[in-house]
Amino acid sequence: MNYRNFDETAAWGRLSALAGDYGKFDYHGILDAGRVERSLTPMAGGLTFSWAAKIVDGTLLKVLGSLAEEQECIAKYRALLEGEIINTGEKRKVLHHLLRSPDGKALTGKPVLLDGKDLGNFYREELTRFSAFVRAVHGAGLKGSTGRAFSHGAQIGIGGSDLGPRALYLALENWARAEGKQKLTAKFISNVDPDDAAGVLDSIPLEETIFILVSKSGTTQETLANELFVRDKLRKAALDPGRHLVAVTSETSPLAHNPAYLDSFYIDDFIGGRYSSSSAVGGLVLSLAFGPEVFAEFLAGAREADRSALEPDILNNAALLDALIGVWERNFLGFPCTAILPYSQALSRFPAHLQQLDMESNGKRVNRDGVPLAYATGPVVFGEPGTNGQHSFYQLLHQGTDIVPLQFIGFTESQRGEDVEVEASSSQTKLLANLAAQIVAFAQGQRPGQRPEARPEARPEAGPGQGPGGNLNKEFPGGRPSGLIYGKRLDPGALGALLAHFENKVMFQGFIWNLNSFDQEGVQLGKVLTKKVLAARASGSANGKADGFDDGSAGDAVLGAYARLLGI
Amino acid sequence: MNYRNFDETAAWGRLSALAGDYGKFDYHGILDAGRVERSLTPMAGGLTFSWAAKIVDGTLLKVLGSLAEEQECIAKYRALLEGEIINTGEKRKVLHHLLRSPDGKALTGKPVLLDGKDLGNFYREELTRFSAFVRAVHGAGLKGSTGRAFSHGAQIGIGGSDLGPRALYLALENWARAEGKQKLTAKFISNVDPDDAAGVLDSIPLEETIFILVSKSGTTQETLANELFVRDKLRKAALDPGRHLVAVTSETSPLAHNPAYLDSFYIDDFIGGRYSSSSAVGGLVLSLAFGPEVFAEFLAGAREADRSALEPDILNNAALLDALIGVWERNFLGFPCTAILPYSQALSRFPAHLQQLDMESNGKRVNRDGVPLAYATGPVVFGEPGTNGQHSFYQLLHQGTDIVPLQFIGFTESQRGEDVEVEASSSQTKLLANLAAQIVAFAQGQRPGQRPEARPEARPEAGPGQGPGGNLNKEFPGGRPSGLIYGKRLDPGALGALLAHFENKVMFQGFIWNLNSFDQEGVQLGKVLTKKVLAARASGSANGKADGFDDGSAGDAVLGAYARLLGI
Repeated sequence: MNYRNFDETAAWGRLSALAGDYGKFDYHGILDAGRVERSLTPMAGGLTFSWAAKIVDGTLLKVLGSLAEEQECIAKYRALLEGEIINTGEKRKVLHHLLRSPDGKALTGKPVLLDGKDLGNFYREELTRFSAFVRAVHGAGLKGSTGRAFSHGAQIGIGGSDLGPRALYLALENWARAEGKQKLTAKFISNVDPDDAAGVLDSIPLEETIFILVSKSGTTQETLANELFVRDKLRKAALDPGRHLVAVTSETSPLAHNPAYLDSFYIDDFIGGRYSSSSAVGGLVLSLAFGPEVFAEFLAGAREADRSALEPDILNNAALLDALIGVWERNFLGFPCTAILPYSQALSRFPAHLQQLDMESNGKRVNRDGVPLAYATGPVVFGEPGTNGQHSFYQLLHQGTDIVPLQFIGFTESQRGEDVEVEASSSQTKLLANLAAQIVAFAQGQRPGQRPEARPEARPEAGPGQGPGGNLNKEFPGGRPSGLIYGKRLDPGALGALLAHFENKVMFQGFIWNLNSFDQEGVQLGKVLTKKVLAARASGSANGKADGFDDGSAGDAVLGAYARLLGI
Repeated sequence: MNYRNFDETAAWGRLSALAGDYGKFDYHGILDAGRVERSLTPMAGGLTFSWAAKIVDGTLLKVLGSLAEEQECIAKYRALLEGEIINTGEKRKVLHHLLRSPDGKALTGKPVLLDGKDLGNFYREELTRFSAFVRAVHGAGLKGSTGRAFSHGAQIGIGGSDLGPRALYLALENWARAEGKQKLTAKFISNVDPDDAAGVLDSIPLEETIFILVSKSGTTQETLANELFVRDKLRKAALDPGRHLVAVTSETSPLAHNPAYLDSFYIDDFIGGRYSSSSAVGGLVLSLAFGPEVFAEFLAGAREADRSALEPDILNNAALLDALIGVWERNFLGFPCTAILPYSQALSRFPAHLQQLDMESNGKRVNRDGVPLAYATGPVVFGEPGTNGQHSFYQLLHQGTDIVPLQFIGFTESQRGEDVEVEASSSQTKLLANLAAQIVAFAQGQRPGQRPEARPEARPEAGPGQGPGGNLNKEFPGGRPSGLIYGKRLDPGALGALLAHFENKVMFQGFIWNLNSFDQEGVQLGKVLTKKVLAARASGSANGKADGFDDGSAGDAVLGAYARLLGI
């Protein structure tokens, strides 16, 4: 396989040359009904990717297609699927796609083996084991320590053990209520701030709650502290913690094969935290909440998306096309952020999950070999559901001095089906009318009698001509690109396809940028310095001093100074 | 008063000249314990602003001080307080500070009059009226239509009628539980997505719920649709909507003086939505939840912060100093984003409120006279609570190719006081140890045997020297600036001070950028196009067509095409 930096490709030069022409992209005369109807790429789970309002045309798409070929995106994806060591920093395989395989084989049809162990079968066995466990809970064969059936599940985890599972649970809660599939109510405890656990435990019936402890390493500081917080609470409520806690971890972790838990389910080092929602990390809580069949539909939707990401034609590969356009926006149009704007309240925390998925995967400054890169990589990702965001930060998106590319998501039908007609339209119709309106407003803007251009400074009539209250504050420059992912209704299959789309988009961008999307060395230094602070406090009190920083290095003295400000 | 664009000031030139020297700011030899102990600015509510880890020094602070004088920040603030028309676009006063005045007078001691009406007294009267209403609810003198006392309050509002009140409610919920001051549980309905209202209504006892309808104009599409959704639900539950709904609006709105509500409380055009948390918009729901006395403490904290913002010495005016440093980072260091990182789960939605406050106020491309600006204005603002964020997007913050300035917030004590000791430290201590560690990690980075520099590309040894797995992926460039706001405990007074600090920071930045922070014309175009879509559907069905776009303009045809994709 040929791994080269993005700026060493022929496409880099061509895109650099083209960039100027698109800097002031004028959608007028380009964005018409025909373009909207033509610029569609099918996705899995009944979804479609609409890219009509992106700053692209035939010329550019050809170059982007050649970039995908130069960086061998599909070949690298196939190698990843088949178990090549793509996570070079940690020398690990990257196998979250294999979690979604119904036959335990890679999408290419090959088994993935490690020292003779079939990893696909291992993942399938764990899925079977935790599904059986879930059925025992639902069948009330497994009850709490006072003999009451479990009505609540509370996940204790942080980062990938929290954001993905939480976002997916919220995404299906209303759907499950409407479909009569809600079996348990799920809650999540993540922050080491003790007020997080205290607040959640206050809101649930302890004797009817099963706690899911999730830590791949079994050493996550926040999660272990919260586990003890929960065990303490359970004991004070005269409940037996051992009959209320189940663990999801790796077989090499201290939590593994531990009688302190009802049961333990396993993942391995080839399932990154932010990619673990398809494993027991997300699967156990989602199956407890909605049933194993619903989780199976979710996996099937993701699997279908994984297959579509193998398509070499970028116009038929939504994840690859989305990735290529994102790189174009980031490196050549110079947009440092991306906003995720789901017009679906069910996806209220989906942007927070994508924020981790994208920023932790591609927020890197060195390539896969550890060599510093001379070009920008992953953007800042943020977002809130529409229409809420319209009444919040959209002002800057429409009229700010920077352009922020937008990713809209919308569904024809609501999840609950409950609605009201006000002024001849339902709330769902209003929601979608707002979505359509925003796409056009961002793209075309509004300048009475004039054609909008992308950048304020490009406007000749700009100048001190306008008097006070001059109407240019009512002018919209337009030229703000957006993509739209839409479908009929947000159900488990569509959600799985949506999640996998973004996982695969981020993967392809990592291939293009030639970096390792699957490690996160950037979280290490903070952990080391945190231990220093805690150790210094301990040694300090041991020596009868306020703290143990006095004898430390300059860096330690600064740590000590901040620790004192904070009163620790 | 002298209103000039930022780039017309003498400070602009001096800052431009200095920028290069600070572009590769090296904290080593600068950031020591002494700097941490010295670089503190007192704030209201027992809070302190620590700016030791910002990219500033004595030289720079002098120039920033002269900038504050050139742009007459304090004089403009005084003028705003006294009722000058600061909102030039809408020709309105800006009076949210007056909501926090115990005597109804501006902080400068003057009354604020409009056509002989004392506006401070008006705000005081409304505060008195809704406080009395709240006491009637708490005293159970006012009950639901089945005679049951109210146990829940549900706010129906969007944007400023939702984000601020919701963030503030969540910020005090655990505090109130610990203090025995929780009186009602509050919920919030905002999105026009019907699943939002359906989901919330599913989670509360309707006959014990009082609904607070909040819309200044009384015409907010989402809020009116949700009101009908709620009224419909109440009727189906055989409850009398008129005895479960109260309104917060302006006296000129269709909702005003309307017998369809238990009562109505008023604000006016001088209270912007995102600045309305100190009015009945936030005050009614917070008072219902925690009592009018708690809301009074909140207002007192905010008032104290407003007073401290009058201090001319920037080293004693945290809001002004924070604003100046933010402008330095945005316009001269070239950082397009800011992350809000509260190490307090109670502030989980506070970043979402600040996102609106900042991006809707200063996300503008024209100055206060409507003339386009040639410099960058408001940044993209995003954030999540720590330590959660550490396991999510911090990877990019530490090792991404762009630098993102950080605003940390932390408190010595938790709100609940419930905690566990694990490995000789409590969860609260771990939380704060992480916070101290992150500040130092971002500032100093880590390069074994070498001094860090701010920018990757500034690193001479960068190049294809390192082989596969080269350890530069474990290297931290540092030079990533942060500010820290800290206090003893997050209580109502501290929360009021925190909110007002950011309101005043945003105001000062608007003065420096010479823009109008108090309008939001950027939300208008979307509203207009949404109405077009809904009207076209109506006319279409009236004419027996699929939709009414066929006879529209090119722009309308594009709207129609998107509406069809979305199935409306």
